[in-house]
Amino acid sequence: MAGFLDGNSYGKSRIRVVKVTRGAERHDLNELTVNIQFEGDFDAVHIAGDNRNVLPTDTMRNTVYALAKDWSGEQIEDFGCQLVEHFLGRNPQIARVRVAIQQSHWLRMGSQAFTKGSEEQRLTQITGVGGGVQIESGIENLVALKTTGSSFEGYKKDRYTTLKETSDRILATAIRANWRYSSSDVEFGRCWREAREAILKTFTERDSPSVQHTAYAMGNAVLKAVPEIAGIRLSLPNKHCLLVDLAPFGLDNPNEIFVPTDEPHGLIEVAMRRAG
Amino acid sequence: MAGFLDGNSYGKSRIRVVKVTRGAERHDLNELTVNIQFEGDFDAVHIAGDNRNVLPTDTMRNTVYALAKDWSGEQIEDFGCQLVEHFLGRNPQIARVRVAIQQSHWLRMGSQAFTKGSEEQRLTQITGVGGGVQIESGIENLVALKTTGSSFEGYKKDRYTTLKETSDRILATAIRANWRYSSSDVEFGRCWREAREAILKTFTERDSPSVQHTAYAMGNAVLKAVPEIAGIRLSLPNKHCLLVDLAPFGLDNPNEIFVPTDEPHGLIEVAMRRAG
Amino acid sequence: MAGFLDGNSYGKSRIRVVKVTRGAERHDLNELTVNIQFEGDFDAVHIAGDNRNVLPTDTMRNTVYALAKDWSGEQIEDFGCQLVEHFLGRNPQIARVRVAIQQSHWLRMGSQAFTKGSEEQRLTQITGVGGGVQIESGIENLVALKTTGSSFEGYKKDRYTTLKETSDRILATAIRANWRYSSSDVEFGRCWREAREAILKTFTERDSPSVQHTAYAMGNAVLKAVPEIAGIRLSLPNKHCLLVDLAPFGLDNPNEIFVPTDEPHGLIEVAMRRAG
Amino acid sequence: MAGFLDGNSYGKSRIRVVKVTRGAERHDLNELTVNIQFEGDFDAVHIAGDNRNVLPTDTMRNTVYALAKDWSGEQIEDFGCQLVEHFLGRNPQIARVRVAIQQSHWLRMGSQAFTKGSEEQRLTQITGVGGGVQIESGIENLVALKTTGSSFEGYKKDRYTTLKETSDRILATAIRANWRYSSSDVEFGRCWREAREAILKTFTERDSPSVQHTAYAMGNAVLKAVPEIAGIRLSLPNKHCLLVDLAPFGLDNPNEIFVPTDEPHGLIEVAMRRAG
Repeated sequence: MAGFLDGNSYGKSRIRVVKVTRGAERHDLNELTVNIQFEGDFDAVHIAGDNRNVLPTDTMRNTVYALAKDWSGEQIEDFGCQLVEHFLGRNPQIARVRVAIQQSHWLRMGSQAFTKGSEEQRLTQITGVGGGVQIESGIENLVALKTTGSSFEGYKKDRYTTLKETSDRILATAIRANWRYSSSDVEFGRCWREAREAILKTFTERDSPSVQHTAYAMGNAVLKAVPEIAGIRLSLPNKHCLLVDLAPFGLDNPNEIFVPTDEPHGLIEVAMRRAG
Repeated sequence: MAGFLDGNSYGKSRIRVVKVTRGAERHDLNELTVNIQFEGDFDAVHIAGDNRNVLPTDTMRNTVYALAKDWSGEQIEDFGCQLVEHFLGRNPQIARVRVAIQQSHWLRMGSQAFTKGSEEQRLTQITGVGGGVQIESGIENLVALKTTGSSFEGYKKDRYTTLKETSDRILATAIRANWRYSSSDVEFGRCWREAREAILKTFTERDSPSVQHTAYAMGNAVLKAVPEIAGIRLSLPNKHCLLVDLAPFGLDNPNEIFVPTDEPHGLIEVAMRRAG
Repeated sequence: MAGFLDGNSYGKSRIRVVKVTRGAERHDLNELTVNIQFEGDFDAVHIAGDNRNVLPTDTMRNTVYALAKDWSGEQIEDFGCQLVEHFLGRNPQIARVRVAIQQSHWLRMGSQAFTKGSEEQRLTQITGVGGGVQIESGIENLVALKTTGSSFEGYKKDRYTTLKETSDRILATAIRANWRYSSSDVEFGRCWREAREAILKTFTERDSPSVQHTAYAMGNAVLKAVPEIAGIRLSLPNKHCLLVDLAPFGLDNPNEIFVPTDEPHGLIEVAMRRAG
Repeated sequence: MAGFLDGNSYGKSRIRVVKVTRGAERHDLNELTVNIQFEGDFDAVHIAGDNRNVLPTDTMRNTVYALAKDWSGEQIEDFGCQLVEHFLGRNPQIARVRVAIQQSHWLRMGSQAFTKGSEEQRLTQITGVGGGVQIESGIENLVALKTTGSSFEGYKKDRYTTLKETSDRILATAIRANWRYSSSDVEFGRCWREAREAILKTFTERDSPSVQHTAYAMGNAVLKAVPEIAGIRLSLPNKHCLLVDLAPFGLDNPNEIFVPTDEPHGLIEVAMRRAG
């Protein structure tokens, strides 16, 4: 053999499941997408074609369906922990399980009817090893835009710089945030809502001299608002809205008409941990 | 030449524009995607390579930007009519202009800040010819789901039928509706909201023996609620949520655990016009 | 009731199927996506909730799987006709069936192994009524680019025109062509290949004074090359590649560096029928 | 402040550029998508809103356009290294630059005309720090399918296992491979082609008792074929093609009719390094 195995994992991605909790007065709806990944004693699978240690990914999917039945339908973190415990407890060949869950956003329209909300997703990732679990939760695709209160000035320039400094621009982004809880015994729903609120409040209320400064302020705000959070990573694309030059048409454009663009886009990433 | 020209059109698609209306107290935000298509005296372009009658599609784009400046930012139908009038009035070579506008859904978060709403789009299509305009408005990607109150029974069966009849299933769809106004002088915003409300109320409150019956009831409800609407077309994919068989795992599944699927999907289309 | 039913249809979309034809020497592979739509005597379904005439869309899907077993795996037009005949022959309630098939593009790598080709799709749509079938075939997403031999000059200008005339630009498009056969008894594979070749030869060899002129020339070339074709529609987006202004960096740009863009894009559509 | 900055980066993503190399006899075409990311002395940006060290991401984009002009148009690895050297050499505030390039696949149709090939992408990522560069190249979305020669048997079963063992199934995947060169002075084009060929030859010729075993064999084959490669990571989704049960229709299905599915899918990842 020319090579050594230097790491491996396997699992099932994009396991979609809808759980309806049928209460007397109303039904609750959960739409989840689950990803499961195992690491462990799988050298023989790779090297010798010996599948004895391989629990099929098809079984992972079935397990999601079956355990969804017993899940309370409340916090996705609980469901993720139940899956991790199930797999670790019954599979000594597994050293590490990661279960990632995305929860879609539905709006209630009646006691048994819903409309789809935004493409924002609530996230969790549970990583389990023999000794315990680590829980990272977060949010993805939280698209926000402010029409003023954002500037970009005083930056470095070189021979390829053509960007004009601006004291007033549109700031548009699709926030992704992933935070690490210091314990697995927290009120996940409340913490999630408070973290989301801290992020949006910072976006809305603070002037932004750069996306970096805004991302950092968001991280600080979350750490301040939610003591249960030990650290946070934020990823903010800068979804540029370009001011249209209307001068050729004899019109001025005092920050009224913009072209939103998808590419290229800026990408700002910040990681923070709790002080002291 | 082996062939005759049997029809042609040209235009610009996916012209995106953001308009910020900067009021004293608050800013308003409009995000539109505009499509423009011309038909007319363009035979020489095709046959002889004579471009004299061709207003460039790049100019169509610029015109959208320039006219967006003067648009009130209120009804997309008004903006579409302004574009149609502009093009028809200055281009005798054009016999017919179609302007289609999609409006994205943003939620206000502050006086100058917004988050993205659902992927639902408000639509209009203005078709202008010498004699006037026809206005068709609508909605697209209005995703709705009900957890009960939907059945599918008593249908035709043949040797390839394996579907089981059910008196209780999930109904999930992504509604597209396009309605034709009988006049160009209506309150577009109010009509749109009332039509949308009639559609959702029908979805929520009426039992559904089939997607067809629901689509027909929606059309009737819109025609009843909004006298300004002369006809409507509805297109409802049946976004199947499949009940998972948990029996192999020793569990029952009384309509609790489902797998949502994207493909294949049913597709139900209905056109209706006002009676009498 | 406020409204009359003015048309309706229902069916199943995105039925995907892979057929492996296991020959002694080699396997052949077909990946298809099928859409089926019925029109007919379905008023009672809509109005009264009476499903007796409704063959479920789930059965349509099963029928595709079952009939795929007997299909030769050669021409998608034959498979479409077999589906149409099946449905029309056993369902007197159906007045009209449309079966549309897309065929994906795979490249042979071995006697039993393949790699995915381009996103180009071979298409057919079979429309069957009591009296017979009409066959329309075609191609979709045939992406082509030429680095020279395309100009755009002598066009109409108005106050919103900023586009510069050019005698040399990149022409990039994603060709969609749909042609109607004059009979259902033609060699579909050969005709398809000859039509595709005529389109690409025109694209490559003819100078393009406009996308319109090129689309028209393509239509003519197809009608000339394939006598079995009675008419053709072509749809060509103009996937603009914008010349980058390198002057601010002290560089010239003699048609070397471009930015490809997805939006906005031009859209040119031409319909032609056989002369005489 | 509640938090410490624990890492940060910023850059520009999805910078698309087309380079036409206009030779006397023929034109060459390169379509690239470039991502650039900086790490370094940016604390003041985040904490104090001081932008002096920030070279704008807009300038990164312009730099890609300008340097593309001088690039030979041959190996994307060379272009990536030129970008890294440019940024590191002129920006002492940068500790680390990552430049990732994807190259699209075009097929020559004439001396100046092309059609789009598959969605396969050639990749490189150049990571530069003060002391030098590390080069990782690879391939993405190389979709391959074999109709036989794949089995999955002898695996672990539990109460949630319903999968049937099979000695003959379709194996379909979309290969992603990323390999690390041991030096920055290798023939990138030849190495890339040889690595790709080793991957596909393994896929085609070796029986597959599991995706894991196939991924491991691919890694070994690459390390054996290309001595310049020090290590490799492979990521193989298992794009399941489900055998259709035709028994209810009175038909057998000896591995002929399948339903290809997108979700859920298996995901197999392997990392290997050169032995000895």
